[in-house]
Amino acid sequence: MGSEEQGDSVVEQIRKNFSSDNVVPACPAVMSALAAANADAAPAYGGDAWTARLSAVVADIFDHPVTLFPVATGTAANALALATIAPPYGAILCDDSAHIVQSECGAPDFFTGGARLVGIPSQDGRMAPDALSYMLDRLPADDAHNPLPTALSLTQATEWGTVYTPARIAELAARARGRDMAVHMDGARLANAIVHLGCSPAEATWKAGIDVLSLGLTKNGAMAAELVVFFNPAHAGHVARRRKRAGHDWSKQRFLSAQILACFEDDLWLNNARHANAMAKRLAGGLFRYPGARLLYETEANEIFVVLPDRAVAHLRMAGFAFHDWHTPHGVDGTVIRLVTSYYTRIADVDALLETLSEI
Amino acid sequence: MGSEEQGDSVVEQIRKNFSSDNVVPACPAVMSALAAANADAAPAYGGDAWTARLSAVVADIFDHPVTLFPVATGTAANALALATIAPPYGAILCDDSAHIVQSECGAPDFFTGGARLVGIPSQDGRMAPDALSYMLDRLPADDAHNPLPTALSLTQATEWGTVYTPARIAELAARARGRDMAVHMDGARLANAIVHLGCSPAEATWKAGIDVLSLGLTKNGAMAAELVVFFNPAHAGHVARRRKRAGHDWSKQRFLSAQILACFEDDLWLNNARHANAMAKRLAGGLFRYPGARLLYETEANEIFVVLPDRAVAHLRMAGFAFHDWHTPHGVDGTVIRLVTSYYTRIADVDALLETLSEI
Amino acid sequence: MGSEEQGDSVVEQIRKNFSSDNVVPACPAVMSALAAANADAAPAYGGDAWTARLSAVVADIFDHPVTLFPVATGTAANALALATIAPPYGAILCDDSAHIVQSECGAPDFFTGGARLVGIPSQDGRMAPDALSYMLDRLPADDAHNPLPTALSLTQATEWGTVYTPARIAELAARARGRDMAVHMDGARLANAIVHLGCSPAEATWKAGIDVLSLGLTKNGAMAAELVVFFNPAHAGHVARRRKRAGHDWSKQRFLSAQILACFEDDLWLNNARHANAMAKRLAGGLFRYPGARLLYETEANEIFVVLPDRAVAHLRMAGFAFHDWHTPHGVDGTVIRLVTSYYTRIADVDALLETLSEI
Amino acid sequence: MGSEEQGDSVVEQIRKNFSSDNVVPACPAVMSALAAANADAAPAYGGDAWTARLSAVVADIFDHPVTLFPVATGTAANALALATIAPPYGAILCDDSAHIVQSECGAPDFFTGGARLVGIPSQDGRMAPDALSYMLDRLPADDAHNPLPTALSLTQATEWGTVYTPARIAELAARARGRDMAVHMDGARLANAIVHLGCSPAEATWKAGIDVLSLGLTKNGAMAAELVVFFNPAHAGHVARRRKRAGHDWSKQRFLSAQILACFEDDLWLNNARHANAMAKRLAGGLFRYPGARLLYETEANEIFVVLPDRAVAHLRMAGFAFHDWHTPHGVDGTVIRLVTSYYTRIADVDALLETLSEI
Repeated sequence: MGSEEQGDSVVEQIRKNFSSDNVVPACPAVMSALAAANADAAPAYGGDAWTARLSAVVADIFDHPVTLFPVATGTAANALALATIAPPYGAILCDDSAHIVQSECGAPDFFTGGARLVGIPSQDGRMAPDALSYMLDRLPADDAHNPLPTALSLTQATEWGTVYTPARIAELAARARGRDMAVHMDGARLANAIVHLGCSPAEATWKAGIDVLSLGLTKNGAMAAELVVFFNPAHAGHVARRRKRAGHDWSKQRFLSAQILACFEDDLWLNNARHANAMAKRLAGGLFRYPGARLLYETEANEIFVVLPDRAVAHLRMAGFAFHDWHTPHGVDGTVIRLVTSYYTRIADVDALLETLSEI
Repeated sequence: MGSEEQGDSVVEQIRKNFSSDNVVPACPAVMSALAAANADAAPAYGGDAWTARLSAVVADIFDHPVTLFPVATGTAANALALATIAPPYGAILCDDSAHIVQSECGAPDFFTGGARLVGIPSQDGRMAPDALSYMLDRLPADDAHNPLPTALSLTQATEWGTVYTPARIAELAARARGRDMAVHMDGARLANAIVHLGCSPAEATWKAGIDVLSLGLTKNGAMAAELVVFFNPAHAGHVARRRKRAGHDWSKQRFLSAQILACFEDDLWLNNARHANAMAKRLAGGLFRYPGARLLYETEANEIFVVLPDRAVAHLRMAGFAFHDWHTPHGVDGTVIRLVTSYYTRIADVDALLETLSEI
Repeated sequence: MGSEEQGDSVVEQIRKNFSSDNVVPACPAVMSALAAANADAAPAYGGDAWTARLSAVVADIFDHPVTLFPVATGTAANALALATIAPPYGAILCDDSAHIVQSECGAPDFFTGGARLVGIPSQDGRMAPDALSYMLDRLPADDAHNPLPTALSLTQATEWGTVYTPARIAELAARARGRDMAVHMDGARLANAIVHLGCSPAEATWKAGIDVLSLGLTKNGAMAAELVVFFNPAHAGHVARRRKRAGHDWSKQRFLSAQILACFEDDLWLNNARHANAMAKRLAGGLFRYPGARLLYETEANEIFVVLPDRAVAHLRMAGFAFHDWHTPHGVDGTVIRLVTSYYTRIADVDALLETLSEI
Repeated sequence: MGSEEQGDSVVEQIRKNFSSDNVVPACPAVMSALAAANADAAPAYGGDAWTARLSAVVADIFDHPVTLFPVATGTAANALALATIAPPYGAILCDDSAHIVQSECGAPDFFTGGARLVGIPSQDGRMAPDALSYMLDRLPADDAHNPLPTALSLTQATEWGTVYTPARIAELAARARGRDMAVHMDGARLANAIVHLGCSPAEATWKAGIDVLSLGLTKNGAMAAELVVFFNPAHAGHVARRRKRAGHDWSKQRFLSAQILACFEDDLWLNNARHANAMAKRLAGGLFRYPGARLLYETEANEIFVVLPDRAVAHLRMAGFAFHDWHTPHGVDGTVIRLVTSYYTRIADVDALLETLSEI
């Protein structure tokens, strides 16, 4: 809590928490928006003025008509999105590092009524088109012994901090389309991918074949706000009822919508991501020069996975830096750690970590 | 939005929205708590200092050890709570006016994997013990043709604005216990019931036989915050995983916990409810004296259901008052409307409505 | 078991079991068909010659193209059928006496992933069109607080042994169609209804608006065989996968199909039902003349619900007759029992029961 | 159908169908038992004399008290069994070749309400204890981001025709028990494993740590009959209701129980399996001597997976032999086929296949 650190002067206080982009506070703009939305009574369940503006704003950003459902968590966004494109007897194909299969405790399984998540191995979190085709061949449409592949889910930026090119997404989406599958994007860190690519939100999504998008804002500066965005209205049909029965229909929905509007105002979501990416690049650059470190993947977004000597890891922790150990494969010498930057990370914070590392 | 009304002086502006207690803003104390919780980074997924304090605070209020799960909506709280005490082959018995059966689009059906909600008719939202026993006799444990009654869910205050006595709850709970059922309370408006009864939170809940409680705060002044409270730890076992897979595990959970702590600080939740109830009493008293009005139920909490002549309803709406029409049974002359008061309702607001009514 | 009764001569042995039409043996024709199907190896999972013939035979009987799925139980047939027309957020409207809501332990709830069964009260098991409309008005399409009515399920013959006219079914189906609902028929005793009505199978089903039919044969002389019949191919899409994942796809499916073919051969199913109905009429006629008896419903199929004095019930049981007590409402003097006839009931059996009754 | 082959004399007619053990007819003893059970009326839903005998018979065979549920398919048996030991938020660990994950279209996912099947790779269908431990370490109990491992499912004989030793099963079960997991055996071909091992049914199951068993008989000579066997009564609690709502509670249950009793009479199930295994050994021996063939796994039960040159495969098919192609991995020269023997396979059938192969 902030009060514990009141002894430090603000200038000197180094932010040492690289655990995740979900440990940081909400942006000032988001907090102001919440306060403004709190001025008086407003209709419940999305009948409010903030929610009313949302569709037009998002349609403008994505240059495409959209149907939207604001929710509070990324898991809810993913699971609701997937439930619209995967029936209970369906299979959802995804990279085997995907959050939906590794970190949501079966949320898609639950929301779909028991669809099967099929993880496809990859080198760096980016599914290879041939790996997708290979798996699709193993799941023929006319054999009832296996779930029917109806959904492809791609994570952008990936769980390993890499970014798909729109061309690669388009290729994967085309192969899925060849089997009448719909394509979902888990965009928990879509903003980070967009600024890395330097493309438009449209190019990153529906122009590359995405039908439904989970657009994450919580990691990007919101308090708790994500969007399910349908580019294909055929899939959006009964999401209002699915959301209600999942307990994700806020009575005071304006407080979700206001957060989201604040994130989109003046490209805040992209600016926040740009800053987070730059901090990650700076950090990765420093680690690259550190003799004992080995970066596992390209740093294209705001996550770094790096192998460090055990004593380096211990030293960083002793110095107060927070981060997560990651699964270290057999035979790797040292420990894999994950370092995550955010809109809240400053140059001084990165440099402090690198400096601490260099002390060993 | 507040800005539209800047022309009125604050003193003169009458709050005319009696639609629901979920249309009103969050309390100032809640907003301050959110701002304070936003001061710096904090561990995710409930590892924060606010969540750490929560159990002790609630245990103190209820004078009993508790296991807690904060969520953002009442539907989530109810459905998560029920999923712990109703297996897929179970039956959940409740008053047939209950929110869980009438207004949650099948959330309990979803979270339990298809348990059956069995509505029991009542006069005023308060289940009669003999009606419960009658239904239990229809659902014998040894006949697999029917779901097994495993859960009793009671709504306090009821959907019709009435309040169970603890003795009545204890009697119902005892009958349920006779069939090895667990007892849930939908306490979306529990604070209103407690201040009406003048009893302690303990007397209103576990002392009367409640095993698991959905404790509502959103209608009481929070932005979006409810608590699932387990008094019986045997039921709380795997709620963390159920919550995660339902998408209700906030990464920045401190923003739920901080709201809740604010509501409990200095009895704010009870004071807010006391005010709401008082406004409802004042309103009901005025309606009682209005010749054309017929109050359908006793006004014991903050909801009033009243039959008004159609032209009275139209006149109120013309004057800017907002409220919901309710289902009007065959043969009733006039329209049933629901009027809801809250912490945000002022004496002047109530009197303005009554005065408007008297103009006809 | 038969061996216990070898002391009686076959001629004299009275069949005293009126418990249900599911206590009787399979027809000789069904047993012969099973033996014939057992002659040699045959392709698994419906690739066999018997299953290949089935569609043409049923299409001919119903004078309409059909998509078929043989299963072993009526509960499976109903639940699979309903899962195709009721999404998890859907409501299935039915008479509140319906087997799907009263006797299947939540099978439709399970197969649909938590759709809501909404029972509509009636006098005699036959839903009134206005009662349907009233309930539909309570479940508006544009209000996400309630499940969306997507399916109407009608039981023919009804659970009370009465029979809908095709005109009444058409009227109910039309009102459902007005809300874009699909119409299911639980035809566990459809043959009994058809012979009562003297209409064609087509007139009893798709010509009256039925989209999907559970066609029962187990109670009619099969060992364990029912059919899900889709008249509307739009609903049949992925039933093969739903059936597989429900464990209802027999590897040796020929043994289901052979039973069904035997039932349809030479109108056996209708002849069996005609006999069962005639036995019920004879029995009802005798009961009608018995002073202490009160028939609760018209006897139009093969089930009789009758109030008898307690000592009459006891006397029948003492004499070896088997039947079920039914729920006896408050205020009724005596006991409600159910008597069911079947293809296996003989005139002498009926007369023996009536004679025993007259002894009191 | 048999009639097509009436031109052949019975002596000369070679049975050429090696597709599966589910393409063959039911045993004569099973057919006789069905006929005997059909002699007269009998109580429905398991109240019959055959079902009454079943528990004692099975308890005697397994030398342990049991709770039993007869069903018609192996998928139903597996899914019902797993639903008792895997909650919706649970993980079921199994070999990644397991039928439950490869061939049941998500039945366990459906029956459990969305538990996760976690496939563990192996060389030959037999899970390695260390592979199990490795996966368990990846799924810690105290991390709600992943399903909780609650069930281990082992297939005996395995999908590749190999057989676990009881010692290996005991080791795996012990590691599962260390995490409070229950252990299921998919015994679709348990009889084949038992006769291979020369152990007792008890040693093959509960003495090695199995809690619940799916015991297959359909592939072993029944028409359609499998058993869910609970050795641990704690798991059997509400299976009657789960079975009912899954549509697997036969009204005329005696026709399941009678098949099963026939299979157990005079060790028919084991004798049938012994014959099937012997035929497989003979076939494997012949293939081993065939220059172009490569057996992929040891032949310990009644399934053979063999790589044959493409023209050998074509030649066998031309000669009328039936079998399934299996997935042929990249880089394998030829085609993988599966050959399955059964109680119905004769020495002459095996020799005819081998002779045909030698003609090339």
